Amino acid sequence: MWKPDRRSKKPLYQQIADDMERRILYGEYPPGSFLPSERKLAEQIEVNRSTVIQAYEELRAKGIVESSSGSGTRVSKRLLGVTPSLTPNWRAYARGGTFAPNLPMIRRIREVLRERGSIIDFASGELSPDLYPNQAIQQLLREAPFEAPLGYDDPQGFLPLRETLVSFLDKQLNIRTTESSILITSGSQQSLYLITQCLLAPGDAVAIEDPSYSYSLPMFQSAGLRLFRIPVHENGIDPEEIESLFRQHRIRMIFLNPNYQNPTGSILAASKRPRLLKLAAELGIPIVEDDPFSLTSFDNRPPANLKSIDAHGSVLYVGSLSKIAASGLRVGWLIAPQTVVKRLADARQQMDFGLSVVPQWLANEFLRSGLFDRHIRFLRDALSRKQLHLMTALNRMLADKFSCIPAQGGLNSWLKLNQPVDDSKLLEESLKRGVVFMPGTVFGSEPGYVRFSFARPADHELESGIQKFAQALHALND
Amino acid sequence: MWKPDRRSKKPLYQQIADDMERRILYGEYPPGSFLPSERKLAEQIEVNRSTVIQAYEELRAKGIVESSSGSGTRVSKRLLGVTPSLTPNWRAYARGGTFAPNLPMIRRIREVLRERGSIIDFASGELSPDLYPNQAIQQLLREAPFEAPLGYDDPQGFLPLRETLVSFLDKQLNIRTTESSILITSGSQQSLYLITQCLLAPGDAVAIEDPSYSYSLPMFQSAGLRLFRIPVHENGIDPEEIESLFRQHRIRMIFLNPNYQNPTGSILAASKRPRLLKLAAELGIPIVEDDPFSLTSFDNRPPANLKSIDAHGSVLYVGSLSKIAASGLRVGWLIAPQTVVKRLADARQQMDFGLSVVPQWLANEFLRSGLFDRHIRFLRDALSRKQLHLMTALNRMLADKFSCIPAQGGLNSWLKLNQPVDDSKLLEESLKRGVVFMPGTVFGSEPGYVRFSFARPADHELESGIQKFAQALHALND
Repeated sequence: MWKPDRRSKKPLYQQIADDMERRILYGEYPPGSFLPSERKLAEQIEVNRSTVIQAYEELRAKGIVESSSGSGTRVSKRLLGVTPSLTPNWRAYARGGTFAPNLPMIRRIREVLRERGSIIDFASGELSPDLYPNQAIQQLLREAPFEAPLGYDDPQGFLPLRETLVSFLDKQLNIRTTESSILITSGSQQSLYLITQCLLAPGDAVAIEDPSYSYSLPMFQSAGLRLFRIPVHENGIDPEEIESLFRQHRIRMIFLNPNYQNPTGSILAASKRPRLLKLAAELGIPIVEDDPFSLTSFDNRPPANLKSIDAHGSVLYVGSLSKIAASGLRVGWLIAPQTVVKRLADARQQMDFGLSVVPQWLANEFLRSGLFDRHIRFLRDALSRKQLHLMTALNRMLADKFSCIPAQGGLNSWLKLNQPVDDSKLLEESLKRGVVFMPGTVFGSEPGYVRFSFARPADHELESGIQKFAQALHALND
Repeated sequence: MWKPDRRSKKPLYQQIADDMERRILYGEYPPGSFLPSERKLAEQIEVNRSTVIQAYEELRAKGIVESSSGSGTRVSKRLLGVTPSLTPNWRAYARGGTFAPNLPMIRRIREVLRERGSIIDFASGELSPDLYPNQAIQQLLREAPFEAPLGYDDPQGFLPLRETLVSFLDKQLNIRTTESSILITSGSQQSLYLITQCLLAPGDAVAIEDPSYSYSLPMFQSAGLRLFRIPVHENGIDPEEIESLFRQHRIRMIFLNPNYQNPTGSILAASKRPRLLKLAAELGIPIVEDDPFSLTSFDNRPPANLKSIDAHGSVLYVGSLSKIAASGLRVGWLIAPQTVVKRLADARQQMDFGLSVVPQWLANEFLRSGLFDRHIRFLRDALSRKQLHLMTALNRMLADKFSCIPAQGGLNSWLKLNQPVDDSKLLEESLKRGVVFMPGTVFGSEPGYVRFSFARPADHELESGIQKFAQALHALND
């Protein structure tokens, strides 16, 4: 982000006006388009609003921009001559297409995270940077020979990585599969996007968990799916609900996160799994098993995945490196029957001609080296320690104000507050105090629930973050 | 691809049966799904068809598969017990969604390329592997410090790469832009996908060139766009046609490849460009400038891009490393006004949470090092030499049977055959002789045109490839 130079002799407002003029001439803001509001730009480049007002005045005096009361400052349509320029109406174009926006509360949280780097972040369901295998990655880049072909890749992804995954998944999770059943994706998001775009049609009914991470994904809305929700209890969903949903709404697919569910951290009881699979097979409904967290299992004993006990072939399995190594690698995998893998691979070619071979090569080197095993042990310990810190802080500072079943894996703790609370007020009070979390309503739960991701804050932030949160809660109840 | 071990004591058919049984049990072929046809499998694993028949017999005897006459061999539905398994009807699911298939001729060519590695390939519009900057990539991986953050990336892409691109595009192509106007994509395909998905709606009319690479992209069909075509002459399209298309069909966007157009290799005359831009601005229609080839200009003097002379802000500029470095890197860029970039970045987050940081880091190191300049000089020389070889061979072996204006950049030569010819017969005759090319009809032209990509074959294949092609043409005219 450009910022004015405070040591320069040129006045700040003049620097801002010059920079903005350049941006306008270079097409960032074409004739007729709106400049950022004075308040927003002032925040971004860290100057007083009055300085931005002065800069915009300067541009107005030069005839580069014009203001219409109430609607902001826009680039002059007569910038290029006497007749108004009829540049495309970019705003109208940008309103087209079929992508639904994010939930307002998620947008608000993302905005805060972008603008306030110092806030204590319990909201992002992501590892903190010191939990990434930074050294392993650097070592592999430096030392592993790069022997991957630099042309377009196989539509299903880099074959050596798929072969490594066959033994990796067998060893780590007892999942037996073949290299031709694997589609390498850029992560679970792309896997889910391909599934919703290619295997379902607008109007189709699908079942998701309640609460559910899927609820927070505008992707489901964008695809025009009708979402029906199955309550998640302490031991996961009740399989029998599948049948009644099928009878009532003809659901065509079930999205589940059976191990350390996001957001509740719960586990679908092992005893329920065979029944669930049997029902799905009898009804002919695929189950999408979203499984980002199994390998984070604190005691290294994740419950057996649906995929690993699926004799009927009803499960589409979705995994990735995002939560067990680093999200920025963008490497994930989807396991499915040939018919499905081929279809999804074909559609992905139309979208982006497939993935870069570089991260796939790197992921392959990482998974087949001893470096992954060392990393995942380190990660399990760190996550288990962080969750313990979080629970200790919660118990000390919120005592009887909440209930929470400690998770046994994953990145998230799910709290029920014992008093009624207004989610968005609690969020705003917390933001004021420098801490952010995900209100349960974001995942479709009723108000009064909170998801804390304990993986993202630094160790020393866990306690002070909960202290700030406790103060926010306290302020609300006064 | 698995293949039976010919040195093993176990008979071939038994090895095949065992391998297939494993694939069935591991879910590659769930109950009720079809196995590959005997002919296809025999080709893939390089055995006689009778051996595959014997293997399938074995599986049939064990009750694992069943054959219904005419419809092939399918996995038994009773595989898992007495009652038939009601696994999801994957075939029906795979028929859902909105992705149009590739043109049959393109599918045919891709299949041939997959199965016959030794064929001389004039069809793929891609660099041959020895033209990739292999050594530079290896050197950078080994030596450049990896300092990119491993978390989720900025939705617009890795900022250091965008900053490098600002000076790179200014220096190389006189394109002046700002880092906030750039969206890093995985290549032109993703840029075009985002544009068609986010800025246009089904039923919208758009203009493309005739012939045009866009015509070969099912993406346009999948998005439900109505395509209207503007003939490409020796000096590119006639801008005045835009206006009449607008009056008649209200076209909402224009897709052009002005420099070394794919497939014709033609250049939109510099004298036509200001008029085109003026018309687009007056009508308020965006021009998508697809520009994969400018930097391949054989004499390093590409015509000034539309983007570089676009004062009205009507141009969306699409570039990538695929044709000037390596397609497997999957790094491209789109330059657009803020409103558009933000919208596309947001939609891309929904599809895949953005790009891997690793290839972006690598591309940044490559572009800002001296290695790129050295590589692009080498590439220009090589391409110019290859085209010369191709033209020499054509002149020698086809003499007066064709006409062709030699390209001044890009990867393609466009031939008009002087005699009428049946495209698909010519293709089949050529395949028989071990050479493949793109018939012009694939790009929407009338029969009798041929696109030769001279970048893909090895130098020594150029002459023998044309010889085989000449023989095929000869056989057809006999």
